[in-house]
Amino acid sequence: MGLVVQKYGGSSVADADGIKRVAKRIVEAKKNGHQVVVVVSAMGDTTDELIDLASQVSPVASGREMDMLLTAGERISMSLLAMAVKALGHEAQSFTGSQAGVITDSVHNKARIIDVTPGRIQSSVDEGNIAIVAGFQGVSQDKKDITTLGRGGSDTTAVALAAALNAEVCEIYTDVDGVFTADPRVVKKARKIDWISFEDMLELASSGSKVLLHRCVEYARRYNIPIHVRSSFSGLQGTWVSNEPLGAKPVEQAIISGVAHDTSEAKITVVGVPDKPGEAATIFRAIADTGINIDMIVQNVSAAATGLTDISFTLPTSEGSRAIEALEKHRDTIGFDSLRYDDQIAKISLVGAGMKTNPGVTATFFEALSDAGVNIELISTSEIRISVVTREDDVAQAVRAVHSAFGLDSESDEAVVYGGTGR
Amino acid sequence: MGLVVQKYGGSSVADADGIKRVAKRIVEAKKNGHQVVVVVSAMGDTTDELIDLASQVSPVASGREMDMLLTAGERISMSLLAMAVKALGHEAQSFTGSQAGVITDSVHNKARIIDVTPGRIQSSVDEGNIAIVAGFQGVSQDKKDITTLGRGGSDTTAVALAAALNAEVCEIYTDVDGVFTADPRVVKKARKIDWISFEDMLELASSGSKVLLHRCVEYARRYNIPIHVRSSFSGLQGTWVSNEPLGAKPVEQAIISGVAHDTSEAKITVVGVPDKPGEAATIFRAIADTGINIDMIVQNVSAAATGLTDISFTLPTSEGSRAIEALEKHRDTIGFDSLRYDDQIAKISLVGAGMKTNPGVTATFFEALSDAGVNIELISTSEIRISVVTREDDVAQAVRAVHSAFGLDSESDEAVVYGGTGR
Repeated sequence: MGLVVQKYGGSSVADADGIKRVAKRIVEAKKNGHQVVVVVSAMGDTTDELIDLASQVSPVASGREMDMLLTAGERISMSLLAMAVKALGHEAQSFTGSQAGVITDSVHNKARIIDVTPGRIQSSVDEGNIAIVAGFQGVSQDKKDITTLGRGGSDTTAVALAAALNAEVCEIYTDVDGVFTADPRVVKKARKIDWISFEDMLELASSGSKVLLHRCVEYARRYNIPIHVRSSFSGLQGTWVSNEPLGAKPVEQAIISGVAHDTSEAKITVVGVPDKPGEAATIFRAIADTGINIDMIVQNVSAAATGLTDISFTLPTSEGSRAIEALEKHRDTIGFDSLRYDDQIAKISLVGAGMKTNPGVTATFFEALSDAGVNIELISTSEIRISVVTREDDVAQAVRAVHSAFGLDSESDEAVVYGGTGR
Repeated sequence: MGLVVQKYGGSSVADADGIKRVAKRIVEAKKNGHQVVVVVSAMGDTTDELIDLASQVSPVASGREMDMLLTAGERISMSLLAMAVKALGHEAQSFTGSQAGVITDSVHNKARIIDVTPGRIQSSVDEGNIAIVAGFQGVSQDKKDITTLGRGGSDTTAVALAAALNAEVCEIYTDVDGVFTADPRVVKKARKIDWISFEDMLELASSGSKVLLHRCVEYARRYNIPIHVRSSFSGLQGTWVSNEPLGAKPVEQAIISGVAHDTSEAKITVVGVPDKPGEAATIFRAIADTGINIDMIVQNVSAAATGLTDISFTLPTSEGSRAIEALEKHRDTIGFDSLRYDDQIAKISLVGAGMKTNPGVTATFFEALSDAGVNIELISTSEIRISVVTREDDVAQAVRAVHSAFGLDSESDEAVVYGGTGR
């Protein structure tokens, strides 16, 4: 039996009882003969409370100091978890990101891991300890300052450690049973996916599925580390994410993996743009210079009479006002008539490697939306994904219709709890 | 202008307002031309809350993990304080004990500092930053584990850094105006001491004065670092502790520095001990083997008829039951009749280098107690201190009488707040 990395999110260790429950689960893996390395997030609301304190003492956040502050959160959860494991009669040692050898760049609040030197962790588990590592944090290579990895950072810590330690699997424990064919809060008949490929999981993650973040899946794919997403409450088999089917039972790849939706984007339409070379480049250079990532882009067919066209794109709602500002600033250079801003939109995406070889998928997708009376405003596709933008009010109906049209509905209504995965 | 080390206790940074007030004070020192290094304790009740959490997950505390847990407290206060300083337009960087080069032994929960390598702190202040360092914590030399220094640890961190950085002064900010001639909660007319020698301060600290701990004063004396104890609320000159008078105005050494009292001790009397060589050694070896520190020892004159004597000693009340247990275990070897345990006692101490050359001091002390109707149970003396044990109920009356008899009462009733100094 090899080494297993387990990651527990903030909701799994929200209080003393949660920590004790997680400790039992860790000890089970150890008893089964595994070497166990655990990555843990801060307890429940700790991070929000610390951010609130920071806003009380300073209107401007300092990246370096905010990272120092926030990393106190995992320090608390990891040492408590080590104590809880020891109380069950097993040896445990906790380690900060720095002690665990998580080396990052110097971009505070959203540092990227550039190396993992897990010597202390390896020694600790070789001595028979369960090693408990702070998620979400590292130390910068050049300045030796404490850094944090940003959203989903603990998942990334877990996958990075699993890669560096040659782990058999990286288990991501969360408050849901796994990855579902759609958000179970919206689609009651959503099914848990037993296995999904890295590629499909990446598309789901970029399309609004929140169970795993893109960054973590990308890291796992690069180092070929199987991820097992499962509930810290139920103990059931969850979803395996890997190159080849793994886990309890071999599964055949489905044509469609799932339906994701995202209501966190807004649409900006630049109206009356001269239809000549270089216009689009000017617009998106203006946006890019502000550091904003845009998602979908659609350019209308030019109206022959005027020689003008409209260009629409989507971006995170939180970046909306900055993007508008940037465009207004370059109004003269770009030469558009007006800007339209719309944050009442939703993106619905169908993901599945099988659609490459199944030509009817796009048609079925659009028919399902049409039958449900849902209007399509924008369309964008990749090899294994089709996304459309609709009215936000239509999103639940649209997701249900598509989920059903592709035969993804489960036989029974499952009762599942669905929420965030902490950080 | 040289480098100043300032230490702020938990009560000074108990909330966002406290942190902002402290930040202003730090910036003042910087504006006055000093290089400033700040040592800060955990906010208010943080430590107690963390200890409570630990007790919820594990009945047995692990030293290593408890230290990891508790050090989260300073991590929060120091990063918030750095943010608050930056919000005032000055550059600040926070550092953990480990980053600040506080190297300790491996005794978790009460580690001792064995070296300070303040390279990062020196660089930080040389670059114009205000360096903010976590008190109470360090890193062990051999295992590179996080350690804590135990009670009063932040004061010790401050003095140790001041020594390593060749600071002009170590300012200890607390919630009282300085060191007083007696506990102002007991003696309304207690006066703030402007200057006190290291020696007298050491005796006061071991006699129950809680403003500075013995360990911190001892460190300051060894490296000859002047300490300035002052209020973080009032901004007034406080008490200078140094070899030679320093500070605002030169002061002449008083005959008596102050009156300290301590109600945290208990008295054990070993009754009917054979009065022969080696008996006392057997008793105190039995106690010492348990790691208990005893304070005063008195042996009665032997009763000629029986050849038996009584031996009394005092020790911290918290160690009482362990001492009784140790003595009972050696009852046959020691050969005593019975044990008496009494925790309703108080120790009152008069401290002052001047008593060496003023023969009337002891007499005045005893007369004052006698006039107040206070019975003396034990007496012990050093070169610059006389201590007596009385009933605990008599302590306030006794301290007031002695304070008054030595002319220490101030003209006016001062209103002072008196409390703990955090850790």
